[in-house]
Amino acid sequence: MSLKIAIAQINFLVGNIAANVQHIIETAHTARELGADIVVFPELTVTGYPAEDLLLRKDFIIAANNAIYTLAEQVKDIAIVVGFPEQDGEQLYNSAVVLHQGVILATYRKQALPNYGVFDEQRYFTEGSQPCVFEFNGTFIGLTICEDVWQGGIIAKTKQAGAELLLTLNASPFNAGKIDQREAVICEQIKAAQIPLVYVNQIGGQDELIFDGASFVADNQGNIVFRATEFQEQISVVEFHDAIPVPSSCVQQYEETAGVYQALVLGIKDYVRKNGFSGAILGLSGGIDSALVLALAVDALGADKVEAVLMPSRYTQDMSNEDAILQANVSGVKYHIIPIEPAVNAFTGMLADVFAGTKKDTTEENIQARCRGVILMAMSNKQGKLLLTTGNKSEMSVGYATLYGDMAGGFAPIKDVPKLLVYALANYRNSLSAVIPERVITRPPSAELAPDQVDADSLPPYDILDPILERYVEQDQSAEEIIAAGFKREDVARAISLVDRNEYKRRQSPPCIRITSRAFGRDRRYPITSGYRGI
Amino acid sequence: MSLKIAIAQINFLVGNIAANVQHIIETAHTARELGADIVVFPELTVTGYPAEDLLLRKDFIIAANNAIYTLAEQVKDIAIVVGFPEQDGEQLYNSAVVLHQGVILATYRKQALPNYGVFDEQRYFTEGSQPCVFEFNGTFIGLTICEDVWQGGIIAKTKQAGAELLLTLNASPFNAGKIDQREAVICEQIKAAQIPLVYVNQIGGQDELIFDGASFVADNQGNIVFRATEFQEQISVVEFHDAIPVPSSCVQQYEETAGVYQALVLGIKDYVRKNGFSGAILGLSGGIDSALVLALAVDALGADKVEAVLMPSRYTQDMSNEDAILQANVSGVKYHIIPIEPAVNAFTGMLADVFAGTKKDTTEENIQARCRGVILMAMSNKQGKLLLTTGNKSEMSVGYATLYGDMAGGFAPIKDVPKLLVYALANYRNSLSAVIPERVITRPPSAELAPDQVDADSLPPYDILDPILERYVEQDQSAEEIIAAGFKREDVARAISLVDRNEYKRRQSPPCIRITSRAFGRDRRYPITSGYRGI
Repeated sequence: MSLKIAIAQINFLVGNIAANVQHIIETAHTARELGADIVVFPELTVTGYPAEDLLLRKDFIIAANNAIYTLAEQVKDIAIVVGFPEQDGEQLYNSAVVLHQGVILATYRKQALPNYGVFDEQRYFTEGSQPCVFEFNGTFIGLTICEDVWQGGIIAKTKQAGAELLLTLNASPFNAGKIDQREAVICEQIKAAQIPLVYVNQIGGQDELIFDGASFVADNQGNIVFRATEFQEQISVVEFHDAIPVPSSCVQQYEETAGVYQALVLGIKDYVRKNGFSGAILGLSGGIDSALVLALAVDALGADKVEAVLMPSRYTQDMSNEDAILQANVSGVKYHIIPIEPAVNAFTGMLADVFAGTKKDTTEENIQARCRGVILMAMSNKQGKLLLTTGNKSEMSVGYATLYGDMAGGFAPIKDVPKLLVYALANYRNSLSAVIPERVITRPPSAELAPDQVDADSLPPYDILDPILERYVEQDQSAEEIIAAGFKREDVARAISLVDRNEYKRRQSPPCIRITSRAFGRDRRYPITSGYRGI
Repeated sequence: MSLKIAIAQINFLVGNIAANVQHIIETAHTARELGADIVVFPELTVTGYPAEDLLLRKDFIIAANNAIYTLAEQVKDIAIVVGFPEQDGEQLYNSAVVLHQGVILATYRKQALPNYGVFDEQRYFTEGSQPCVFEFNGTFIGLTICEDVWQGGIIAKTKQAGAELLLTLNASPFNAGKIDQREAVICEQIKAAQIPLVYVNQIGGQDELIFDGASFVADNQGNIVFRATEFQEQISVVEFHDAIPVPSSCVQQYEETAGVYQALVLGIKDYVRKNGFSGAILGLSGGIDSALVLALAVDALGADKVEAVLMPSRYTQDMSNEDAILQANVSGVKYHIIPIEPAVNAFTGMLADVFAGTKKDTTEENIQARCRGVILMAMSNKQGKLLLTTGNKSEMSVGYATLYGDMAGGFAPIKDVPKLLVYALANYRNSLSAVIPERVITRPPSAELAPDQVDADSLPPYDILDPILERYVEQDQSAEEIIAAGFKREDVARAISLVDRNEYKRRQSPPCIRITSRAFGRDRRYPITSGYRGI
């Protein structure tokens, strides 16, 4: 018995049910043209994922449930498997439904609802309790949704219920190393249960999250026999004979740094596109962070959609301006030079009386950063271009950034990228073609807010700071554990006390693109008011 | 059999386990001196509530579990009932423990874990499955925790397990009308189960949440026989004879507007105190919002801890400055006048080239607001005073505010207060003593960012806007439902499309004090990137 299954690795827009339904209909048509008998979509297809508190709106849920009837009516020549928030009385389920020839063949309710990390599914959904197996053209097919295949037991239970083949609808977000982890965990279970699986993941950026795609098919030994591309829409058909998949193309995964780069590009592209901006602007300082963000933005949007603004002060070195201009020219982006001195002088004069007798401190540095913020926001407002902030995760961890200054902006592409990875990404990008001036990579990093300032004046060197932060922020290690791992007590104490005290800044920062296993934001939810001190 | 139970309605600091343990020990001592046999504390006493992702830190959980041994050792002359996050193997429970004479008499694991609204308990905890009843001096006492007594069944099950009397440890956050709702829901269950209950709530501000206290004792008919004060620490002893409470003092509840006022005062006080600020500053415009925030800040912190800054522009009317100065003088707060013209002119000049040929729009208004933001933040940074923002919920709903401008600040006291309630609170405050000039209340509201501008130019009148927003934001009503309730389609369309499009601003706003049944922030979690349009 032959069965052709189309894998619809598609990019949806959260909340736009009408557009998503149209996208499903068109994709089903394409799948039919490719000869498929059945097409499988990602989790919660009609609403997009995650729809967050839109799922609490009655009108939204009604529209999502009605969408299933629309699809049943409009797609009759191919079976489709789509996800939707299923209302049943007072309960809401994260469900998948099989539609064929105008009728519902089967409905499955997700049993494992993740409520950790970036996931809040128990806020919205009731757990299903039953496996679901349906017959299609003589093959018994089981349905599962995302977390179901990460937890033990549900795959085996579905097989016991008669499934010869599993379909899994997913919205599994990216982080570095996630694809290997995902395939390893799921294929081990597949192998144990001896059942082949079709894994369909969505792709696209949604606020902080990137969905990477990398949909795959595994045989009943857990061998990957098909893998879709990462970070792109793709509709592929895999053939099954007697529920055994015919090996097909396996796209090579990106190497880790390259994968992160692609994720960041997709994140910028989708945030700009889905939110209707005409392009992006950013402050270009001649430092490594804004250099990387410019390269990413150009790769995401094209040079004609990106503008750079140089805003030198008396502390800006000539090489900073030179390198910024060099990169702008190499990249082909329009740039402006707006020295901040007039505004800084104006504020200094306006505050002279109230600051009389006080010493210079970070206040004066912050004023400079905030003058830049005002200029960039004015240009963003006037042109409808998204302002990208350029702070990295190391800075955001320790609060080495100015609220409403360099933190001002609508989207923070590298807020989850530690400084050492910023360098690696810059080198990776230059290995494709040289866009970031070499001196930007080799010079010591500096905020240039005071004479001869370098980051190393205020912070431990990044090759010490970054691993401490990874242990503290991402792995929840205690100070003592980090010290026991070989770090100096004073470095650990300095780093983590800065992390503890800067939650208020992070709370007001724009969303980032999550590329680590724990990003600030929906992933790491700390109180601002807190007497906890990690050391 | 007589039993004296102390109700420890206490204000804890989230995360500071050592300080909380000390506070528990001192309170137990006081309770003993008041003649109590047993003292009951609020939910998760040793960590404070909500500790959020601190609960994912192993070191934090170990410290919290160790705290129980410290308490068992140090408090021996009175039984204490305290809450803590109990680690048992891989599971974490939201538990309460009874300590007496150095031993653990009983441990209860919360069965109902709220995971809606502001609550995320299923992110951290495993549900308990058993009632808990312990004997103390001949009385059989059942333990429950917060949500347990809101849901049907758990009270009855605990009674069936032998309880003659229930103790409930709570961290139940305030919103307007919450105390009536709380007493009504719980007392109905009490009456049905015919069992008396001691309800101990924490008090204090914790980021967005206010815990109001209002601890109470109900007899087995659901009659309130004791009620503690709202918004203040209080240690009270209630006597029981054969598990029947002896009627005691019932503090009169604040009337609704007065209650909200008290909640806001406590919120400011605790945010400033718990975060170590030396005081607060705010921009005082002569409008109603900043007038109310000034009144609240002075009532919370004292006039000597508050500074006001007038930042007039060419669009500021004389009466605005006059009224601002009048209120500052009446309130006894120091004020500064810093006209923003020099900075606005500097930016206008700096942007002249890039803005050449463009029309004036909100960009120019935003520049004014952002100049004020820079000045206020500089003063906040220099003095270590918390900058209070003055935007109300109506504005924040529709995005009638400037990001990094009037939205700049560490804490947004009235961000959850709709404009009509702002007026009611101002009138209430003036009814105690006149601090807000009458003209501030009676003049038409204006942002004063353009010539002769009034809010009504851009927004429906507040007596129409506010009820639409309440239905849409707090009650999740659809546009059609709101129109059916009698509002004009055009007003509804304008209001809710503004709400939909301004999530990005709210995401970067400082935390507020939650006083409605749904505040922006942890309570209403919407995607920024969203194709959902409410109309």
